[in-house]
Formats: sequence, C-alpha cells, structure tokens
Amino acid sequence: MNFFLPDVVARQLPNVVGRLGLGGIEPVRRLVSRAVINKFGYATTLRPRALSLASDYTSWLSLTDRTFSGRHLPPSTAVQQAALPPEAEVVALYRRERLTPATDTSVMFMFFAQWFTDSFLRTSLTDYRKNESNHEIDLCQIYGRNIDATNLLRSRQGGRLKSQLIEGEEYPEFLFAPRDAGQPAVFKPEFEGLFDPAFITEVILRSASEQQADTFFAVGLEHGNSTIGNTVMNVVFLREHNRVAGILAGENPAWDDERIFQTARNILIVMLLRLVVEEYIMHIGPFDFPIEAVPLIADQERWNRPNWCAIEFNLLYRWHPLVPDTIGSGPGALDASGFRNNNPLVLEKGIEAITAMCSKEPAGRIGLMNTPVFLVDSSNPDWPSVEQVTVALMRKARLRSFNDYREAYGLPRLTGFDQLTPDTEVRQRLTALYGDIDKLEWYVGIFAEDYPDYMMMGELLTCMVANDAFTQALTNPLLARNVFNDATFTKTGMGIIKKTSSLQDIVTRNATSPEAVHVSFSYGSIASLNDNGRTR
Amino acid sequence: MNFFLPDVVARQLPNVVGRLGLGGIEPVRRLVSRAVINKFGYATTLRPRALSLASDYTSWLSLTDRTFSGRHLPPSTAVQQAALPPEAEVVALYRRERLTPATDTSVMFMFFAQWFTDSFLRTSLTDYRKNESNHEIDLCQIYGRNIDATNLLRSRQGGRLKSQLIEGEEYPEFLFAPRDAGQPAVFKPEFEGLFDPAFITEVILRSASEQQADTFFAVGLEHGNSTIGNTVMNVVFLREHNRVAGILAGENPAWDDERIFQTARNILIVMLLRLVVEEYIMHIGPFDFPIEAVPLIADQERWNRPNWCAIEFNLLYRWHPLVPDTIGSGPGALDASGFRNNNPLVLEKGIEAITAMCSKEPAGRIGLMNTPVFLVDSSNPDWPSVEQVTVALMRKARLRSFNDYREAYGLPRLTGFDQLTPDTEVRQRLTALYGDIDKLEWYVGIFAEDYPDYMMMGELLTCMVANDAFTQALTNPLLARNVFNDATFTKTGMGIIKKTSSLQDIVTRNATSPEAVHVSFSYGSIASLNDNGRTR
Repeated sequence: MNFFLPDVVARQLPNVVGRLGLGGIEPVRRLVSRAVINKFGYATTLRPRALSLASDYTSWLSLTDRTFSGRHLPPSTAVQQAALPPEAEVVALYRRERLTPATDTSVMFMFFAQWFTDSFLRTSLTDYRKNESNHEIDLCQIYGRNIDATNLLRSRQGGRLKSQLIEGEEYPEFLFAPRDAGQPAVFKPEFEGLFDPAFITEVILRSASEQQADTFFAVGLEHGNSTIGNTVMNVVFLREHNRVAGILAGENPAWDDERIFQTARNILIVMLLRLVVEEYIMHIGPFDFPIEAVPLIADQERWNRPNWCAIEFNLLYRWHPLVPDTIGSGPGALDASGFRNNNPLVLEKGIEAITAMCSKEPAGRIGLMNTPVFLVDSSNPDWPSVEQVTVALMRKARLRSFNDYREAYGLPRLTGFDQLTPDTEVRQRLTALYGDIDKLEWYVGIFAEDYPDYMMMGELLTCMVANDAFTQALTNPLLARNVFNDATFTKTGMGIIKKTSSLQDIVTRNATSPEAVHVSFSYGSIASLNDNGRTR
Repeated sequence: MNFFLPDVVARQLPNVVGRLGLGGIEPVRRLVSRAVINKFGYATTLRPRALSLASDYTSWLSLTDRTFSGRHLPPSTAVQQAALPPEAEVVALYRRERLTPATDTSVMFMFFAQWFTDSFLRTSLTDYRKNESNHEIDLCQIYGRNIDATNLLRSRQGGRLKSQLIEGEEYPEFLFAPRDAGQPAVFKPEFEGLFDPAFITEVILRSASEQQADTFFAVGLEHGNSTIGNTVMNVVFLREHNRVAGILAGENPAWDDERIFQTARNILIVMLLRLVVEEYIMHIGPFDFPIEAVPLIADQERWNRPNWCAIEFNLLYRWHPLVPDTIGSGPGALDASGFRNNNPLVLEKGIEAITAMCSKEPAGRIGLMNTPVFLVDSSNPDWPSVEQVTVALMRKARLRSFNDYREAYGLPRLTGFDQLTPDTEVRQRLTALYGDIDKLEWYVGIFAEDYPDYMMMGELLTCMVANDAFTQALTNPLLARNVFNDATFTKTGMGIIKKTSSLQDIVTRNATSPEAVHVSFSYGSIASLNDNGRTR
C-alpha cells in the first residue's frame, strides 16, 4: 500500500539511514520522513468513509455528523458476533499477575499519552456511539473545548491564561471556591459553566478526597486533574502559553489581549504538533530514525481529508498495560491511589521532580496479561472497571476480526496463533477462547501480537496508530500552506516552534532549575542519549 | 495556474473538441472535463485559508469556526478604504433604466440560481460576518438545515417527506394552520420549531398577503416560498424524493422508513450535484462542451479541502441583473409582485406551465445598469434595498480591489478602464468614481467587465464562480471514493443518478403530461437543441 517505496525498502531505509548517522542531514531527514509518513498515511483506504457509528448504512448523517465516531471497517455480521466468547473471559485476558516492564518506555510517556489522547478521544458517557471532541489537536486541555470555556480560562490581560503563583511557581487557578470541611465543592463564580456540575460531582469527585478536590485546577477538560500526569502537562503548557504571550506582548506593543492570546495559542498548538510527531510518534514508531514533521507535507497528499476519529482509533489507544503498579520505590513510592487526583503532591514536589521521577520509571509492556488489577476488576458492582467498559464498547461497536483489519491495512492474514505470538500461555488461552485465528477479535489481537524489543507494540497496532495519528495531526489547519508562516505565528513564534522538538525543551524553559530538568519517554535514556537526544 | 495544460490550450480545447462533436465520446468527454475542472480548481491558492471574517489575523477561530464566512484575500488597508466613493453612488451604478436581456439565459436559470445558492450562502441578519449554512450542497431546501428540521418535514412512512395532494398533484404541506381572516398566521403544531417564528413574522410575512401566506409550504428554508421559482424547485425535488422513496420501498421490503429516507436523500443530493455541474455550471461556463461531473475526480486533487464559503463567493453571486421586469407579456404577464410570494399562482397553473413560462423568458444580462429598480432603490426608509445591503456588506468586508483579485486568480491586471469594457457610459462613470483602474472595487469590476455573447459574465467572475463551485460541489462526501457506489445508493439509485443530467429530466418524471414539459436554462433553446440537449 506504499506508493513511494517497495515495502521492504520503506521498512529498512529509515534504520539504515539512521544508523549511518545521516538523520541529521536535513534533506535526507526530510526525504526519509516523507517516505515514512506516507507509508503509514496510505496504509489503508482514505477518509471520508462511508460509515460512522450513526448507522450501518450510509446516510447524510453518517457522512457529515462528526459527533458520531467514525469507523474504519463496516460492522461484523450477526453470525460472527454470536460466535464470540463471553465478555468477562475477554476482560480476564488483560489481568496482570506480575508487571512485565516495557523495554524502554517510561511512565512519562504513559502520562503524556493519556493527556494527549483525552483531548480528541472523548467517548460520550450517555451514547457510546459519540465522541465529544473537536477531532483536532487544539490543546483543549488548557484552552477548553469551545469558545465559552476558553473565555472562562483567559485572564483578558496580555493574552494570558488565568494563573496563580504558589511559592513563586505558576499554576492554573483553583477550580473550586474555598469551603469549610464537610461542605460540598462549589465552582468559583468565575468558572461557573466551565463543566457540567453534575458530571463533576457524580463522576470526577467520586474518587477524590476533600483535600485533593480543593487543589483541583481550572483547566480545559473535566479529567484535567485526574492524574499527576494530567496536572503536570497542563501546568507545563499553561506556563509556556503565558511565557510566549509575554514575549509577544513585549515585541508587539500595539497588540491587544485578543491578538496576543490567539497568536500564542497558534504557536503552542504547533509546538505540541511538533513534539507529537518528532518525540511521541517517533518513540512509538519502529524506526531508528529522527522522523520530522515535514513542513507542508499534507498539502500534496490524498490522505489530507477532514479529521474524523474512528472508534478503532479510540479503542486501540487503551494502553492500560503501560500503567505501572507503583512509581518509584521505598517510602516515597506511589501506588495507583498516589498518582491519581494528587495535585497536593505536584504542589509539594514541583514539576521538575515529578517529571524526572516519571521519566526514570518504566511503564508496563503493552500486551495481554499486563493491565493492573484495579483497571481490570471492578471494586463496586455499580461501576464496571475500565477494561470492562472497554471490552463492552468494543463489542457494541461490532468490529471485524483481527485478520480482517490486518488485511485492510495491507498486512498478510495470519493462519495460526503460532504466527501471532511465541508466548505459549497466550496461544493456549486464545486458542481455547477463539479456536480459529480468523475468529480472533481485533481488540484482543492487537494486544496479543508479539513484537521485538525495539518496538513498543505489535505490527498492526503500530500501523493503525501511525495511520490515524499522521493523517490527523499533519492535517492541522495551522500547518497548511497558506497558514504556516510568519503572519500567523510572528517571526519570533516561528523561531520558538523551530527550537522545540521535545517536552524536555518546554519544561526546561519554564523551570526554576533548568539544569535539573530531565524529561524523557525512555526510562533508561540518560546514559544512552544519542546526537538527536533520542535513544532508540 | 493550470498544472495540466497551457492556458491557451485549456481555453480552446473544450471548444474545439465540442465543435468536432467529440463530447459524446466518453473518454474524450472525461479527459476534457477533468482538464476544465482542474483549470478552474487550481485558478487560485487553495483552502484552508489563513483568514475568515472572524478576525484580520489568523486564530484558531478563523481556522476552524465555519459559522464565520471565509475570505479569499486579506482585507484592504484603511488608506484604500478611505479613498472609496460613497456607497450610494456605487449602488446607483446598478440601476436599470431599460432592460438589457441576456444572450440566452432564461428566467428558469435565474430561479434555479436563487434556489440553489440560498442553501449555502446564508448571510446572518444579525452578524454580517456569519454564514448560517452547512457549506455543503445538502438539499437543505427540502430537508432543512439540521436534523430537527428534517424530522419535522418527514412523514415517517415509506421514507417520504410530508406532502399533500391538491387536485391530484403533490405539494408540500401548508406551513400555517387554517385561520380566520385578519388573524395572525400560526405554524401548524407539527411544524412548530421549523423556523424562528419572529423571523417569519417580522421578515418573511412582511411582504405577503394573507392569501399568499395561507398557501406557504412547509419546506426546508425560511425563504422557500419567496418566489414562484423557489416554490417550483421545492415542489419538483419533493416529488422526486417521494418518487424515489417509493421505488426503494418497493425493491427493499425489509427496509424501514429511516433507511429508505436516507438512501433517497443520498440519491437526490447526487442528482442535484450532477445537474449543477452538467447543466448549471455548464451553462455559466465559457465552453461549448458538455462538461461531466467526472466520477471521483476530487479524490486525486489538492483542491479537495473542506468547504468553506467565502464572503467573495457570497457577494459575486448577487446576480440581480438576471431579474426581469416582467415574466411573459399581455394580460397574464407577471411583474415583480407577481413572481414573489405567489404560491396561489403555482397552484393554479401547475409546475409544468410555470417552468415552461420561465424557460422561454429571457433573464436580464449580467452587468452594471441592469438591476431592476425595486432591488436598487429602497421603498421604505427603515429597510434598505437589496443592492444597498449588498454594497454595504461588500464595504464591511473590506475587500481588495478588482485588479488584486484578477492577479490572485492568475489573470493579468488591467491598466485602464478601456480594457475593462468598450461601453463608454460605464467607462465614464467608473472613471469619474474611481479615477484609477487600480482603485476599482472588486464588486463593481466583476459586473462592469465586458464579455462576448457566448459567455454570460466577465472573465474574473466566471473564473471565481467556477473555482468556488467546482471545488465545493465535487468535494461532496457522497462523491468520495469509499462512498460513491451501489452500497450507498443501491443499483437502482445509481441508475437513476446516471439517467439524470438536467432539470428537465426531473420535472418530466414527475409531470402529469411529460410530453408537455419544457425546462431550460436557455430561453431560445427549443429550436436549436443539439445532441447533448444543450444549445451553446
């Protein structure tokens, strides 16, 4: 399916070029990056697709109403559905008994992935067919999902977001008004309307203590305080927004708050896009090569079609095995309750310490039998577990089989479980559940598929995530030919974008002790940094 | 700007091929059509554009919020704006003293154009920067602009739209409940919520008599009854929808109302798209060649980017000179009050008689000094005239000059008014108003530009309307590679689409006397029909 290079060349070229150290030569880097991006961009048929979750046949709604999740393949048949094993047995496949660590992926990567994907994969709680996002990388995590939310979050001075200083460090403002112990949490008047109060009370605050809730920050998304990772990412991007706004305000004294804000946002979004491609997808990708977000690449390509997040994209991103049992060791170690809803910890330790801790900690290895028990087993009969919800959603979406998806992405169908994985226990369990490799469910297959140490997930999962990521990140309107220029970002803004290719860059700029900053998606990376600041 | 053929070849090829009679040979027709569509598709820079009317600099809003009109070129400077003549003097340029008829364009064309464009060029009455349409050709004229409106218009039986039989002929239902004389018009309960009642009362009913209002039909858009043309088009498409729904229901006994409705709508929209390209744009185009809506053409092209109607597209479509002073002659002749708000006439004469009458009647010639007085001069100090509103909108949009737009569309800048038109009066008036051809306003220039008899508007206007039309009609999701197939339309539906290339086809299918039907965008066309059913 790659129109530019034979498959074997496209697969090996980046590694060969990378190992020869040619990735630093701009024209080479650009050429290889283009080949890699297009290899994945054209891995399957292109948007627009005939179906969404709106209906099983094509309608004007299924073609235009993006509140419904898209779908890559049509639904499976009733006969296929009837032959599937019970959901509970599928859920059980994921249960971790003992953590298998990732080869080099850090907990920082996990937190980034969660924070990043929460902005565009927002399954509705009332209608599983719907995705409440804008289908764009728009940094709604700090700007809110719509203009009303954005307005509540802006200070209206100097293009800045509202923030507060705590012991000399900048954080978002607190969401709730001060209260006496035992009183319910109430939004500060200035944040009324930011979120549905019922959702906050019934879902978000259910698992948070009073002390935790009182330090919840007012950020763009409801889940913005749910892990120390979400909080850290929001704080870092808020600081960077206000830093950039300050620079723009200084250089453009005639600009009003509105123009400074909008221009800073333009810069911040593209900064995020760059690090998504050049650090994050790069980390996921199977190549030993510094992939570049080639300027204007989408302009020429047929995969440049309106974004529409598919249900498969939503589901394949449930990388629950990345979640460790604990972060750190010894008396300061955090278990799951320690890294959830824990803004007090972030305030106590600070951004640099938390990001460094998460960067040195191995994430779990993506695969079956490696998801923490608290995500697999429900602790409350009224609330299904995260993995139960996921498997139920997968079933409701009536997806085609693992092999059907392999075929749709240009990969050969497997003919037996032995081709899927050498792991005898997994083989045995899947054979018992499904009997035939052709009956293996897609959601199970992408986690069961074995992969070498230099990859972080199986072949189909890699291909699918890269396809959706490249064809929906690089279509961002800020990267378009008429837009990606000094007029949109200012010359200074273009310079800031150019100087940003990693999260480490952004954290460092906003740190009180820049030399102490260590942020990496590879937990073992300090010793083995190469010229590109990358390990793989 | 044409990447496929040198300009002179692209310009002459269709005529040469057409005159050689080769347009009927499918591969030739397809090749030439592709060349013509791409010539116009690539006539200027492509979407997405940096600016909309949201702001004069690029913001996330200007890049994503399509409730604001787009803009092709950035705004003019304050200095340029200060040098412009008074609006009233510009409006006066349009005033008709004596009708100049179009070379061959009929009043049927005018009515079609009005009905067609009202569906995607919907300037907000409360904020001139906004366009309240979906930016798609979605047949909202009969289906409504959103799902709530659609639901009110559907019968929920057999996939049909609600309709009534009047003397054996099918019409939409009446919008208002029966009332006593002198009582206010009130929506039928089943149509409550279809439109904003205040807008209907304060704007739509202002110029309609009680008898006229009582026969207003419940259709998709507020202005759906404002002219006999809008009414005729809505009736024709409603009949065709219900006819197609009947066929689908007969062939697919297992289908429910929903599936029949959605599939019929899919078919109807593509039918409209075909006749827009193959009859309507064909009529506008300067070529003597039967342009084809080449299947899947957009799939390959860089102009295939999300639709976004620009303010220039909105303004260039103000073809008020097409409006005649009267339709017909003798005692039955209709003046402007006769062809507005006149459903009683449509009910009396029937669709075939009205369409035949309009098809034989010359429209006015597009140009300055040819707009009917009732559209130029306000009859009420509280309500500006249509042309006054238009010129005011053009000024508020702060558009660049006529020459700037010529340049942006790859045409040479003019160096004097003598290159614009041989009409000495026009030259004289424009020289007096603007002095310098470089100061000539775009909206005036596109109407002042002279053109030969085989065209129906000037070079720049032709180029701009064709660019926006091709690149926004052919991007319709129903025409996309994964969608344009039997699964979406059924085999029968594909056959119906294939058999439809003119409005005449659709009217004929739904007529009581098919042999009497005569529908044409060329008023002199009966005698000179060529093999393709076209005259030019």
